[in-house]
Amino acid sequence: MSSTSTTAAFDTRVSAYLQRLERSMDAILPPASTDPQRLHEALRYACEGGKHLRALMVYAAGETLGVDAERLDAAACAVELIHAYSLVHDDLPGMDNDDLRRGRPTVHKAYDEATAILVGDALQTSAFEVLAISAALDDAQKVQMIRALALAAGSLGMVGGQAVDMASENLTLTLAQLESLHARKTGALILVTCQLAAIAANASETVRNTLEHYGRCIGLAFQIQDDVLDQIADTATLGKTAGKDLAQHKSTFPSLLGLEQAQQRAHALFDEARNAARSISGHADALLWLADHIQQRDH
Amino acid sequence: MSSTSTTAAFDTRVSAYLQRLERSMDAILPPASTDPQRLHEALRYACEGGKHLRALMVYAAGETLGVDAERLDAAACAVELIHAYSLVHDDLPGMDNDDLRRGRPTVHKAYDEATAILVGDALQTSAFEVLAISAALDDAQKVQMIRALALAAGSLGMVGGQAVDMASENLTLTLAQLESLHARKTGALILVTCQLAAIAANASETVRNTLEHYGRCIGLAFQIQDDVLDQIADTATLGKTAGKDLAQHKSTFPSLLGLEQAQQRAHALFDEARNAARSISGHADALLWLADHIQQRDH
Repeated sequence: MSSTSTTAAFDTRVSAYLQRLERSMDAILPPASTDPQRLHEALRYACEGGKHLRALMVYAAGETLGVDAERLDAAACAVELIHAYSLVHDDLPGMDNDDLRRGRPTVHKAYDEATAILVGDALQTSAFEVLAISAALDDAQKVQMIRALALAAGSLGMVGGQAVDMASENLTLTLAQLESLHARKTGALILVTCQLAAIAANASETVRNTLEHYGRCIGLAFQIQDDVLDQIADTATLGKTAGKDLAQHKSTFPSLLGLEQAQQRAHALFDEARNAARSISGHADALLWLADHIQQRDH
Repeated sequence: MSSTSTTAAFDTRVSAYLQRLERSMDAILPPASTDPQRLHEALRYACEGGKHLRALMVYAAGETLGVDAERLDAAACAVELIHAYSLVHDDLPGMDNDDLRRGRPTVHKAYDEATAILVGDALQTSAFEVLAISAALDDAQKVQMIRALALAAGSLGMVGGQAVDMASENLTLTLAQLESLHARKTGALILVTCQLAAIAANASETVRNTLEHYGRCIGLAFQIQDDVLDQIADTATLGKTAGKDLAQHKSTFPSLLGLEQAQQRAHALFDEARNAARSISGHADALLWLADHIQQRDH
């Protein structure tokens, strides 16, 4: 575990990073009054709320590698846009059919289904746009980032994981299958936060590999924790429907390992992530803080 | 009108360009046997068929500017991927709810709704990926192309036009409103084919502006023709449901102008496009052929 002093230190920077994110989002999304107004209102609605852990990971990884925050802004914004688009589409009636997200009606509930489809589509476009128009990155970095983000988001990454997840309802998966599913569905976008920071830093391959190991451990631990929270937390705390996995007859880490063993596995992965962070730098406070912060979340 | 000899000349190159497109598509889309198989099968299904007019416009515009075909491949593939994604999502039950596309069942009919949502999402990702990984373009060109494509595809372009179109059902638009709607919904992606070719050519601003004028004329003429065909052609010829505009109480160019005047307007726009093409180069055979070819289409 990181010491109290370093934890406090990064804690004071988190709100500044979240403000940077908000400014980037505000700059890339057209004003809500832009024609077509309903679409642009809904685009902003879809990006409100949330914990922005992925953006914070970009900043934390970048800070650890000594990158100026302005060279991380586009990447932080891009991963949040991809994440937001995936939530809007996952919640659609044709997918998970969910009414609640981040404690509020989902986009297709607050607006309508057609708008929600288009909102997801436009958010994805904006993710690539924000990288392409960044004034702080050189063209080589932009291209590498777009390539990494596309690989993480596409049919071999997040979208592929979502497809496997839907096909796996009512099936009992092996632990290896479940880990592979989540490495794509949620892991790929968490991992890419580390890759984007490494690109912004022009990091060596060794540093990049270690940072990716941190990202993979956090990604898997995050998902195990998600499964645990789905089982033990209530809907009000989660801000989304609780108990969904059981209702959809999905294999989860608690269902395969038991609740206690699942929690132990997540604990071990957070420790492994912290060890990876420490081996990158003696000043990995930000990555250590983030591991602690994610480990302690209750929603 | 272009002379018979130049028409024949480009005609012989069309099949070579379409083969290049097919190779690019085959390279960017994972094999259908890739896990998750159903998703990857559906991704390829969604890209089969079609006239590939947008890809041909990239090649025709690039050829006119003296660009090697290999520096146009990624752009041609990217616009077709964006087009294919937009069709898959437009056909969804939550949008136009269409069963037929390119003479075959739509993706959500041939597979299922969740798969169709994910297919559209992954195709859009691939469009940006194919530009980012091109071996024939330099990084500055890739970034400019990604930026142009994002602007054309996003909430200020194609997706915004689709939102306006859906909001306009049962409304009578003015001609200016209808033109503005289609400048976004179909025009933006046709226009960007010219912009991408100009970027590949590192063209001067004057050339780029004239080429854009060609693209805007073709885009609007194309849409007027689409409205005319929806009214006069049958479903078998169109390969998609005919008579939809009337059924959905949509304003169309024939409904606002009358059928004959709409046809005359399209005719004048095709002439204007040809004049723009001729003013770019004395060897604009490809662009002239394409204007003729689109003008003569019956579906």
